[in-house]
Amino acid sequence: MTQLEYARQNLVSPEMQEVARNEGLSPEELRDGVARGEVVILKNVKRNTRPIAVGKNMRTKINANIGSSPEKMDLRWELAKLEVCEKYGADTVMDLSLGVILNDVRRNVLKQTRLPVGTVPIYQVGFELARKSLPLSAMTIDHFLEVLHQQGEEGVDFVTIHAGVTKKAWQYIKEKNRILDVVSRGGAMLCAWMEKNDQENPLYEHFDKILEVARTYDMTLSLGDGMRPGATRDAGDRAQIEELVVLGELARRARASGVQVMIEGPGHVPLDQVVTQIQMQKSLCDQAPFYILGPLVTDIAVGYDHIASAIGGAVAGAAGADFLCYVTPAEHLCLPDLEDVKQGIIASRIAAHAADMVKNPARFRGLDDAMSRARKALDWETMFALSLDPELARKRREASGVQEKYCSMCGEFCSVKTLQEIGLL
Amino acid sequence: MTQLEYARQNLVSPEMQEVARNEGLSPEELRDGVARGEVVILKNVKRNTRPIAVGKNMRTKINANIGSSPEKMDLRWELAKLEVCEKYGADTVMDLSLGVILNDVRRNVLKQTRLPVGTVPIYQVGFELARKSLPLSAMTIDHFLEVLHQQGEEGVDFVTIHAGVTKKAWQYIKEKNRILDVVSRGGAMLCAWMEKNDQENPLYEHFDKILEVARTYDMTLSLGDGMRPGATRDAGDRAQIEELVVLGELARRARASGVQVMIEGPGHVPLDQVVTQIQMQKSLCDQAPFYILGPLVTDIAVGYDHIASAIGGAVAGAAGADFLCYVTPAEHLCLPDLEDVKQGIIASRIAAHAADMVKNPARFRGLDDAMSRARKALDWETMFALSLDPELARKRREASGVQEKYCSMCGEFCSVKTLQEIGLL
Repeated sequence: MTQLEYARQNLVSPEMQEVARNEGLSPEELRDGVARGEVVILKNVKRNTRPIAVGKNMRTKINANIGSSPEKMDLRWELAKLEVCEKYGADTVMDLSLGVILNDVRRNVLKQTRLPVGTVPIYQVGFELARKSLPLSAMTIDHFLEVLHQQGEEGVDFVTIHAGVTKKAWQYIKEKNRILDVVSRGGAMLCAWMEKNDQENPLYEHFDKILEVARTYDMTLSLGDGMRPGATRDAGDRAQIEELVVLGELARRARASGVQVMIEGPGHVPLDQVVTQIQMQKSLCDQAPFYILGPLVTDIAVGYDHIASAIGGAVAGAAGADFLCYVTPAEHLCLPDLEDVKQGIIASRIAAHAADMVKNPARFRGLDDAMSRARKALDWETMFALSLDPELARKRREASGVQEKYCSMCGEFCSVKTLQEIGLL
Repeated sequence: MTQLEYARQNLVSPEMQEVARNEGLSPEELRDGVARGEVVILKNVKRNTRPIAVGKNMRTKINANIGSSPEKMDLRWELAKLEVCEKYGADTVMDLSLGVILNDVRRNVLKQTRLPVGTVPIYQVGFELARKSLPLSAMTIDHFLEVLHQQGEEGVDFVTIHAGVTKKAWQYIKEKNRILDVVSRGGAMLCAWMEKNDQENPLYEHFDKILEVARTYDMTLSLGDGMRPGATRDAGDRAQIEELVVLGELARRARASGVQVMIEGPGHVPLDQVVTQIQMQKSLCDQAPFYILGPLVTDIAVGYDHIASAIGGAVAGAAGADFLCYVTPAEHLCLPDLEDVKQGIIASRIAAHAADMVKNPARFRGLDDAMSRARKALDWETMFALSLDPELARKRREASGVQEKYCSMCGEFCSVKTLQEIGLL
């Protein structure tokens, strides 16, 4: 049985017990959220992982993407990234590997982490075809399902499925109203498939078969946004919203089949449209958990897209987005390295926490208050301990060489010291 | 005459001509904004600088703070920071120097940059008293005015004046409702002055004399928020809003005297209160330009506060804040170094631009569109040229070693390439 099926039968699974404890909710509240499809629990039945819940009333989660590219294939480097993910507090990792080491990376990642692991199965399909010098347009649904089965058997906890990339949405793209037509790898693959075969997207046509496999392993479906805007100018256009309408329909079918489902979202969105994006998704997809990439609130922050993403992610999270996929400083430039992974995670954690302070002040602001109290006491050890990167904070403080309790910013003119001297503190 | 006096007489000054050209407005529109006090032009009459406008319908500006501390006094290092400010696009710099090289730094900064320069004159007063082993509570208004005159004569374009730190606001602090009582250096100095002397803040009491000096040089007053919240928990409390009410009264008096004025704002503010903060300031201060520090949307981002600040700054800017003071990664830890200055400026520019895309799409989104078009064309030289940090973008692209037009993220699975192959692009 899937977590959704347990919940629908009013049963509290061991996974719900564990998640409820971590989230500070009663197991029954959590169960009801799962039953309504507002919460998903990421955990393949085949795998002994720490279950993570994504959705309404849950802590906002962050995902870090790792994985090789055909241009950079190094298993040890990818596993080193995985260690960075664990160290800096990613809640999940997605292995987006491409290239000939793709299966190796995934299997090793699944073995070495207790974090939920997500994939995009069409990448493996594409790779296997390419190995035989075939284009993606040669893909058959059976091949896709076989790969999905294999990854489910290996323990993958959630999978991106671009089943909403339909001919109709593709037609809107072909009308050339966009600046950047399709920026999703999987989305582009399926557009190429539809164009070459002149048929509907097989992942849409055979969605029931996908549901069957997903149900077997309780793999959560993450319905991909192949039509996501990759330019702020393209946000909220017909291609994007047409796909979102379809994703809402598919989400309903998934839940009806007992399959857990969440929805992926953009991308590049101007700041004043971020809240609208969240509201539309929640409304069109019956409050399904929303998993967003960014959104980036400007297109020009190349080299610093983790910051553009943190702005959009914080606003999206506060408006109800449940799961933030990190964006690293390498975005739009190259495959992220270890430092990029770290920077991406920390920026996303800041965004997620800023959002959680809004979503649930009673639960989340205590950490901020503790930090502020430590600042008032000039208690550096506590400040380090509460920070997102204690090593960095300590290193910078120590490098400043100040022996006094105040810091090198104001020195003896420290406002806390000034108030202490007049007896207020 | 000050710019405000010119504008009130329906005159367009040469500075207004120049600013209007840079902002893409008619000189008359700009003049009317200045006349209403919704826009200020930062330029001391004694100095040959590039005038910068701050306020409604202007590009959102960013300020970078530089300056020595008693713990780190190195004139050359501060001037190197100034070069970083110019290179990465700060619109103004504030020299917040403390310590014995304070006057040296300011004079050299004023000599070496054409950017508008701001200061906090009470720091010099504090330093001169400390040199004589006197506490700040020994300050006289005449001493303060003498320093203000001197800095005006030297060409300082805008000055932070903590005239709103009144006994009443201080009384609220003393009721100990806050976690972090006073985090403004100048604010704490004046609280100590009031406490020791049991008298009203002399900058409030003698505000007319301050106006006289400011008018002489057309120094824009930046009314400081000595009561700004330094903890998200303290945002919007009685001490803060009491001061803001007073700042609104002082702003009106400044304008009545022909003195340009803007208002400083917090600080640490939870994300869902940022817009409220902007609306309150605009309402209480008759739409005076709003110059904000951050706001930081969480207290725990130590080491990464430029990101917490970019989130708050973008949302504040989109809601009407006019001028963003940068926050660097060194905030709450130590005096910023050269890399911190760079990172702080870039994060603030991202926030300001994201805000400008909302405030005036027609004017500001063209840059984003051009970047997106370059992405579609895989035109790397144009992407580098349009980015905030062309050197970094080029370096990372080159380090990836990819010779093809696609990047090392997706390699041959590049979505743009995929669409090119099926003839869409």
